[in-house]
Amino acid sequence: MWMPTQLPDIAKPMREAGFRGRAEALADVTAPPLSAVVKVGGGTGAFVSPDGLLLTNHHVAYGVIQYNSSAERNIIDGGFIADGRGDERPSNPDFRVLVTVGFDKVTDEVLSDARGKTGRAYFDAVDAASKRIVAECEQGGDVRCSVANMYYGTDFYRIRQLELRDVRLVYAPPRAIGNYGDEIDNFMWPRHTGDFTLLRAYVGRDGKPADYSTDNVPYAPPAHLQVARSGLHAGDYAMLAGYPGTTFRHRTAAEFDAQVNRVLPQRVAVFDALIDAVESAGADDADIRTRYASQLQSLKNNRKRAAGELEGLLRSDALRLRGEDEAAMLAATTGEDAAGIAELRAILGQADAAAVRDQLLTLVASQTQLLRSALLLERLRIESAKPDDALRETGYQRRDHALIEGVLRQVQRRYAPAAEQALLQVLVSRYQQLPDAQRLPAFDAAFGRTPDSLAKALQTVYSGTRLGTEAERLSRFAQAREGQPLASDPLLALAAQIVAAQLDAEDARKTREGEQLRLRPAYMRALFAWRAQQGRAVYPDANGTLRVSYGKVEALAPRDAVAYAPVTTVAGIVEKHTGQVPFDAPQPLLDAIARGDFAGTDEASLKTQPVNFLTNLDTTGGNSGSPVLNARGELVGLNFDSNWESVSASWWFDPRYKRAIHVDMRYMRWLMDKVYPAPALLEEMGVPAR
Amino acid sequence: MWMPTQLPDIAKPMREAGFRGRAEALADVTAPPLSAVVKVGGGTGAFVSPDGLLLTNHHVAYGVIQYNSSAERNIIDGGFIADGRGDERPSNPDFRVLVTVGFDKVTDEVLSDARGKTGRAYFDAVDAASKRIVAECEQGGDVRCSVANMYYGTDFYRIRQLELRDVRLVYAPPRAIGNYGDEIDNFMWPRHTGDFTLLRAYVGRDGKPADYSTDNVPYAPPAHLQVARSGLHAGDYAMLAGYPGTTFRHRTAAEFDAQVNRVLPQRVAVFDALIDAVESAGADDADIRTRYASQLQSLKNNRKRAAGELEGLLRSDALRLRGEDEAAMLAATTGEDAAGIAELRAILGQADAAAVRDQLLTLVASQTQLLRSALLLERLRIESAKPDDALRETGYQRRDHALIEGVLRQVQRRYAPAAEQALLQVLVSRYQQLPDAQRLPAFDAAFGRTPDSLAKALQTVYSGTRLGTEAERLSRFAQAREGQPLASDPLLALAAQIVAAQLDAEDARKTREGEQLRLRPAYMRALFAWRAQQGRAVYPDANGTLRVSYGKVEALAPRDAVAYAPVTTVAGIVEKHTGQVPFDAPQPLLDAIARGDFAGTDEASLKTQPVNFLTNLDTTGGNSGSPVLNARGELVGLNFDSNWESVSASWWFDPRYKRAIHVDMRYMRWLMDKVYPAPALLEEMGVPAR
Repeated sequence: MWMPTQLPDIAKPMREAGFRGRAEALADVTAPPLSAVVKVGGGTGAFVSPDGLLLTNHHVAYGVIQYNSSAERNIIDGGFIADGRGDERPSNPDFRVLVTVGFDKVTDEVLSDARGKTGRAYFDAVDAASKRIVAECEQGGDVRCSVANMYYGTDFYRIRQLELRDVRLVYAPPRAIGNYGDEIDNFMWPRHTGDFTLLRAYVGRDGKPADYSTDNVPYAPPAHLQVARSGLHAGDYAMLAGYPGTTFRHRTAAEFDAQVNRVLPQRVAVFDALIDAVESAGADDADIRTRYASQLQSLKNNRKRAAGELEGLLRSDALRLRGEDEAAMLAATTGEDAAGIAELRAILGQADAAAVRDQLLTLVASQTQLLRSALLLERLRIESAKPDDALRETGYQRRDHALIEGVLRQVQRRYAPAAEQALLQVLVSRYQQLPDAQRLPAFDAAFGRTPDSLAKALQTVYSGTRLGTEAERLSRFAQAREGQPLASDPLLALAAQIVAAQLDAEDARKTREGEQLRLRPAYMRALFAWRAQQGRAVYPDANGTLRVSYGKVEALAPRDAVAYAPVTTVAGIVEKHTGQVPFDAPQPLLDAIARGDFAGTDEASLKTQPVNFLTNLDTTGGNSGSPVLNARGELVGLNFDSNWESVSASWWFDPRYKRAIHVDMRYMRWLMDKVYPAPALLEEMGVPAR
Repeated sequence: MWMPTQLPDIAKPMREAGFRGRAEALADVTAPPLSAVVKVGGGTGAFVSPDGLLLTNHHVAYGVIQYNSSAERNIIDGGFIADGRGDERPSNPDFRVLVTVGFDKVTDEVLSDARGKTGRAYFDAVDAASKRIVAECEQGGDVRCSVANMYYGTDFYRIRQLELRDVRLVYAPPRAIGNYGDEIDNFMWPRHTGDFTLLRAYVGRDGKPADYSTDNVPYAPPAHLQVARSGLHAGDYAMLAGYPGTTFRHRTAAEFDAQVNRVLPQRVAVFDALIDAVESAGADDADIRTRYASQLQSLKNNRKRAAGELEGLLRSDALRLRGEDEAAMLAATTGEDAAGIAELRAILGQADAAAVRDQLLTLVASQTQLLRSALLLERLRIESAKPDDALRETGYQRRDHALIEGVLRQVQRRYAPAAEQALLQVLVSRYQQLPDAQRLPAFDAAFGRTPDSLAKALQTVYSGTRLGTEAERLSRFAQAREGQPLASDPLLALAAQIVAAQLDAEDARKTREGEQLRLRPAYMRALFAWRAQQGRAVYPDANGTLRVSYGKVEALAPRDAVAYAPVTTVAGIVEKHTGQVPFDAPQPLLDAIARGDFAGTDEASLKTQPVNFLTNLDTTGGNSGSPVLNARGELVGLNFDSNWESVSASWWFDPRYKRAIHVDMRYMRWLMDKVYPAPALLEEMGVPAR
């Protein structure tokens, strides 16, 4: 996951891997071709025409599709092809496309005030400088700015992004193509999914970002990618650009140890207990089962994910390997950096000790409905009492009010008192068993220290609260957003105690984070030196900024005697078809496969139509919709998933198992040519129908 | 699945496939090497030393292992190695090894009385002749005789088998080796299971079969197989001998149609309804859940099996292919055979119409506990009233009394009135919806023809019956086995009505079967002629008699982009190991794998220890424990499972998907050498430890 600015430094290995372009041309994120790669919703996308046509995943654009679907015209199930530009449909109002137009190093500006400080003061200085830079940058409007922290406090970059607000739906395949296999096939290879959608960005007649209007005109992007006419084969060079979310690969061996031996095992255990609590509460209560169906599904997914991550780290022996690597690095490190690293390790020890407790505190807010509302209200009251947004915590500023109100309104559909108390019972009783050093006085005051006191507190609060009705919550919201005291309620009283505890924990966390911001650069410098000795460059851990990864098409042998080919074909769609969701391939697709008219989009070596392919490219969450390019920089694939064995790659990249799963552009072209035709769009992309 | 007597006829293709022996030497089942292959319990086994040492599957010998396991010494979990011959343990008293000592064609004797007859008379004539041949053959004792029907009434063979009754446990690996993966891996490839056990057969000092006695001596088998010192590779010739149970490959296209379009879909639907009934009955009743746990598991397995068979037949397009093959055959058939086939098809139409009803009648007996007891008692009463065993139905003769008593005794642990009524509700309400032509008057009299009358009948009977107590059942048993009237009880009254209905259905079935026995030979003759024209021989469908199959080691590509290698290694044991049943590999095994001392039993091309391998050999239930031989007739593997895609092979052999799964003898040798050593046994088998 290289920063584009690093690519000239690794031009040699890229060429050796098969790259046929100039690495220097990829270094500037504001110039072609990388300026074609944009942030779309929660993922990535790429412009594919000079008229703002934008390719991303079906699942990234799902909100847009859903927004335009209705009982009369179900375009989720049926798909959508705009009948000319006038028929292109507006997206949901909060959907955004961000075009990066500036990427500048601001390390000195961010750190000048912080130097010489420690702990909380260091944190606050960095935080204030960052907020100041963002505010200055956003003056004049139309750009959204942020400060990105690279190499854990070593470098900071100011990112300027054009925020396109009028984005329209142009082409979406039916759900049973765009999401064929759904949760069952998620994280699975072989896949057979046409997970793509075409949008178009619009701007005002002045060329500036604008809200949706019929007066708007298509946006002329700074660059667009050319769809390739041929595909890739096993071993072929491939590269990918996108906005990966978060990785942890440069964390210390001690942090790997905490993750493998404490954080993930506790996560699995807590999720198991929560799943059990929800299922028991719903065993004889159909209403609870309905209200908690989605939360239960999410708990199960999170549980599976945590177990998969743990399994993967163990399979890769990551803890031992990271430990040996770090020990060798430390042996080669002396002087000030060695001292800094020693200090850092002490700080990380404190963080480790607090990790289990902080995980429980987070779940108390995220896994409850009514208590979460009360916590939101109480925190909103505190933050709103501050004189202006600059001083308010992220998530509680004026611009966040609509979101908070939405949460308060939706409680009704997802809440049952018995289930919420059962969930809290699990979380707080685990908290009660923590060692004294980890306790928060306010939390103890709220629930006491025994199972009896906990049961009694829950009983008192939940039988007494009136927040169960929406009107009561909204009247408190009106008070909270003005920073006024909230009308009394037992659940709000409990929330006030918990928020006090959270603020204590948050304060301690920020102090620790300040120290980490100050000290981690020493660890990174040691790592740079150690890797340089090994002849290797170091990319910063992913942080939502634009990155490039290069590699090749590669098969996967995940287990003894099991080998997966790197390309799937339409034969697999027919094999998986059951007629039942999620394997209900549409009849026009089945008919087209049976006709076998694949000339021009087929894979000659397989004598049939390819669907998805597999590479060893480095990806993580946020890379959904990333364009996959061939050695000449042409668009050959669209990233949309990883294999199950990759779940642990956010911590450890194991080349034996890490793969990324892509839609073959030839499948998209075939669908748009022979199955659900859109000849004008193929023409616009420069790959006309035959 | 060739009869050994056919092998000289197919010597040429066998040689072309790689066989290096003389096919003629395999033709006589009573001479070496096939005389080493014996029936063991419900499967197959092979002698592997001149002293009666017998190799079979762990799962075939499981009853013997269980019988010798106790709370003090759990040899199921721990495994067993006899400390010398004196320490070899007796098997459960009903465990048998059958050595085939005679195989003679008796077609004329069986059919002489039947010729000229039709229907029930034809059936009875065949039945009486068969019983007479068996009785004559068994005079003198020590042999068990049977008459096998080959090619559906075309040929009959008298089989004489020595019945060895003193069989002892010699060597069993721990459960977590012998049954590694259990139900999860059952029918799955890649497998990693050491599914083998060594027994030893004993006889009296006079060399004749005898009950267990410390005076007995090891049996000297007519032949034994030599364990190979090397293994097989992809493409290598392999063959297998054993006692496959039942296949249906020469059934008519109409019977394929019934299976695919009616029998299997109804089986899936009925099992779904029964599963639902048991789960609903147990939803709020832990006692029912416990009592019906095993029946529920078996219902789910049967449901999965039926669905898999249906899926496989559809995947292979078996119905169309069989139909086209039969149509071509019929076009080439004239004269008497064509007329016979026309008659046969009419008879099969009747059978098809009755199939759905007969399936329900069978389930009424097999899926109930108390009603099954009552049905057994009533039928036993009727059969016992006949003057002698020769006239009694199989299953109700004197020798069956112990088994019946066992069933009557075990009801207590597996019965709950609510669950049984729910199951009957499902079955009888489906019966009530059958067309009039399929109805049995006695059945209608028992339950009426409406949901109301059914509910009332069940309510009356189950509230009134006293058979729920064991003493009541056993007192009726004492009456029934003497053919005396049974003391009155409402459930017995119901059973009397149902048995009357069953006897009606059975009578009609025997009449139809008589016609099929008479007419199917015409179909088989047409098939012989058609296959001869294609240059192909025809084996008889499997019927529990000794058969030989030849083929090769072959990989499997079951789905798009998925390829399975044909050999697994110990690496897969470690990968699957979770520490939890059924993936709880024993520590000594894990340690031995980590040590990597595989010299002499390793696979050079993989540089590690092989575990299981895959061939395209033709197998079905009953082939468990079949020896797999190389081109020189040496023992290289032990058959123990098939892949899931093979479930439909009992009807249709699809070479793309049909595979058999074997224990590599090198894995057995390594385990017995390095992990749970038994050097004396390796010595006895002629493959001494290093």
